[in-house]
Amino acid sequence: MAGGTASASAPWKTLLLKALDSNSHLKHSAFFQLATVGSNGRPANRTMVFRGFQENCDKIQINTDARSSKIEDIKYCSFGEICWYFTDSWEQFRISGRIDIINGSNLDPLKLQQRQKAWFASSPKSRLQYLGPIPGLPVITENPGAENQLDPSTGPVDAFCLLILDPEQVDYLNLKSNERLMFTSRPSANGCKVWIFQKVNP
Amino acid sequence: MAGGTASASAPWKTLLLKALDSNSHLKHSAFFQLATVGSNGRPANRTMVFRGFQENCDKIQINTDARSSKIEDIKYCSFGEICWYFTDSWEQFRISGRIDIINGSNLDPLKLQQRQKAWFASSPKSRLQYLGPIPGLPVITENPGAENQLDPSTGPVDAFCLLILDPEQVDYLNLKSNERLMFTSRPSANGCKVWIFQKVNP
Repeated sequence: MAGGTASASAPWKTLLLKALDSNSHLKHSAFFQLATVGSNGRPANRTMVFRGFQENCDKIQINTDARSSKIEDIKYCSFGEICWYFTDSWEQFRISGRIDIINGSNLDPLKLQQRQKAWFASSPKSRLQYLGPIPGLPVITENPGAENQLDPSTGPVDAFCLLILDPEQVDYLNLKSNERLMFTSRPSANGCKVWIFQKVNP
Repeated sequence: MAGGTASASAPWKTLLLKALDSNSHLKHSAFFQLATVGSNGRPANRTMVFRGFQENCDKIQINTDARSSKIEDIKYCSFGEICWYFTDSWEQFRISGRIDIINGSNLDPLKLQQRQKAWFASSPKSRLQYLGPIPGLPVITENPGAENQLDPSTGPVDAFCLLILDPEQVDYLNLKSNERLMFTSRPSANGCKVWIFQKVNP
């Protein structure tokens, strides 16, 4: 395995699904940290919730507020790196790739459909947060939005935004076995990605 | 509290020490994710271990391998952002600031002393990893460094590097109370920092 091995499917995805399964008793196993670069050139980093893979592929879904500063970051630099540490199995996945922003003004009907699906997949309670005041601005009234209500059949509100991270490289580290694998992708002739991986020093 | 409140000591440090204490039964409570920017302009993100505050101040200590790629990142852009999520108390600290690299070639005797202190504060087992092969390069031999030994009185080896992050801004979020506080600093006349904080929308 020290040499490269090519694969058409994403071989790290199998490891990630296994880690999610073995850590599923922990609520925070679905949480990871997403790093971006701001327009001031500095890094930013925050905890996000994994909202699953896009159907039949290795792209990672994240819900966010379209008014949060990470949107400006991603418009400035479309690359992000997820650091996902599994506290029970001691595994770390560093997943880097380009991020696509899908808000309500997107012109692609397929993407708008994905956004709508992500909206209805989130809990009614978490949908309410998108009706609250602009994140990061000074608090003006206490308990803002406490009176907000939303019909469960109502579609995505303006502030709801779906992010799709398309992985290009995955750096996997297992702190129990002290093994590290570097997965890198390249585009193939048919528009899909081909993954190779190599064992590297931890 | 919606207005600004000025303070000479770091008011977020009290919250952080409290979070460390209330999550101390979890080994991973000392782990956080550090984001940097690489020379390709893209973000990088990895899990690191909190090695304490510098004496009598709010600067954060991190040990790392001088041969790891994060050193190149920090030389390119000296800013980093820590994202520290406490899984039991549901608190998040986003700590951004400039990072100082202290390796064996540093010319400041005080900094070299800090590096030596950090070396001896780490476990003999963790010191051994700095004798291993270069992180991130392909594995050439299995179990490299398994035969390495290090006298406990030996000082820091070349690969041992101390990082010091000097916080400029701390974004605190409590997911149980749904409260968010933004702490910002500015230099004061005597060379110290003055912190102000404000309650912002989560």
